[in-house]
Amino acid sequence: MIVVSEKTIARLVQYRRLLHQLAARGVASVHSHELAALAQVSAAQVRRDFMALIAAGTPMHGYDVAALLEALRAFLDAPEGQAAALVGIGNLGKAILTYFAGRRPKLVIAAAFDIDPAKVHRLFRSVPCYPVEELPARVRELGIRLGIITVPAAAAQAAADQLIRAGVRGLVNFAPVPLQAPEGVFVEDIDIAMSLEKVAFFARSDRAAEPARGGRRPAPRLHAAAV
Amino acid sequence: MIVVSEKTIARLVQYRRLLHQLAARGVASVHSHELAALAQVSAAQVRRDFMALIAAGTPMHGYDVAALLEALRAFLDAPEGQAAALVGIGNLGKAILTYFAGRRPKLVIAAAFDIDPAKVHRLFRSVPCYPVEELPARVRELGIRLGIITVPAAAAQAAADQLIRAGVRGLVNFAPVPLQAPEGVFVEDIDIAMSLEKVAFFARSDRAAEPARGGRRPAPRLHAAAV
Repeated sequence: MIVVSEKTIARLVQYRRLLHQLAARGVASVHSHELAALAQVSAAQVRRDFMALIAAGTPMHGYDVAALLEALRAFLDAPEGQAAALVGIGNLGKAILTYFAGRRPKLVIAAAFDIDPAKVHRLFRSVPCYPVEELPARVRELGIRLGIITVPAAAAQAAADQLIRAGVRGLVNFAPVPLQAPEGVFVEDIDIAMSLEKVAFFARSDRAAEPARGGRRPAPRLHAAAV
Repeated sequence: MIVVSEKTIARLVQYRRLLHQLAARGVASVHSHELAALAQVSAAQVRRDFMALIAAGTPMHGYDVAALLEALRAFLDAPEGQAAALVGIGNLGKAILTYFAGRRPKLVIAAAFDIDPAKVHRLFRSVPCYPVEELPARVRELGIRLGIITVPAAAAQAAADQLIRAGVRGLVNFAPVPLQAPEGVFVEDIDIAMSLEKVAFFARSDRAAEPARGGRRPAPRLHAAAV
């Protein structure tokens, strides 16, 4: 069992994306401070992250881009690929299906589910949409361990419970409600409405975000009374 | 100038959403531990957050839901309302316009921009779409300080730069690339692809997320060599 922090994985995914861009431009090697500037982290952080991935330690003349990409692939990707299920084919669900269509060979949305009779038994971006009643059987049959929830808030927990009972161990939740999940199930909430309200707050002329210090998240704290 | 942490604002937005749900069900007062359970934070955290909002301190018989909602409204919302600009009317842009349509009286997408001649000079969900060349003038004219970026990665920094030069001070960035922004501009990155890759990693049978301890985010650290 490999135990690793969520933030480390987010950085590794980010490094991989940047390294792919560098490789596409013909760059063969990269220094930690160059990658750090692109990823907006410290060079020391980049070196620490790669220390565990690359046996060779920190090279003097930069990391080999191809070797790093191979090490990241071996660490991040399931060798046999991974299938996901998406629940809720509204605008956001369709946007995510479109994003995925044909783009990621190792991560494929294999099934979608909806309650709308007009949507089921159709293909959306080559992904079959089934009635939500078939979710448990289909998810089990396909061995799906990754779920994407794009239903309204009121339906989100039920969708999560069904997915988890059918074997799902990772959820990306776009519904604006925190989900309850048992230990061993990883939940990532992407709360678009909350992000918009938060940014709207800080975009006002008389508001400012407390700056993060030394790479740590700022302590949650209210500096000024509001009433 | 009110200086406040990003996480505090995220929690206040979340409390407000939960309090609206309670109010809709006729609940008139709520204890900190009840709200804490719904928001998945500690009761002490709820009390600390409200201490700065509500002059009365921690009530014995629960907080008055209507008074809390009023205090949150006064703190979070711009009294005169706020206008946002959205750049990039693809699937995700449309999903966000649909989400907003008629829902939030205090936060309105007032203008959208795209480079596609087939999209400009049309309404999308009642929002006018202008050619991106008109962005600086329109954003200034409308006094917009909040921008939403839903363009492809390669176009994101240019869109951000244009918005910032026109007066925008908060950006929600959906493009899968970290944005550079000057001090005083608040940027929230919503990287859907990264979240999916991260959850896919932890959904695998032999992977686990390092648990967060005592409410703090886990230190970024790799426990196991990957190669």
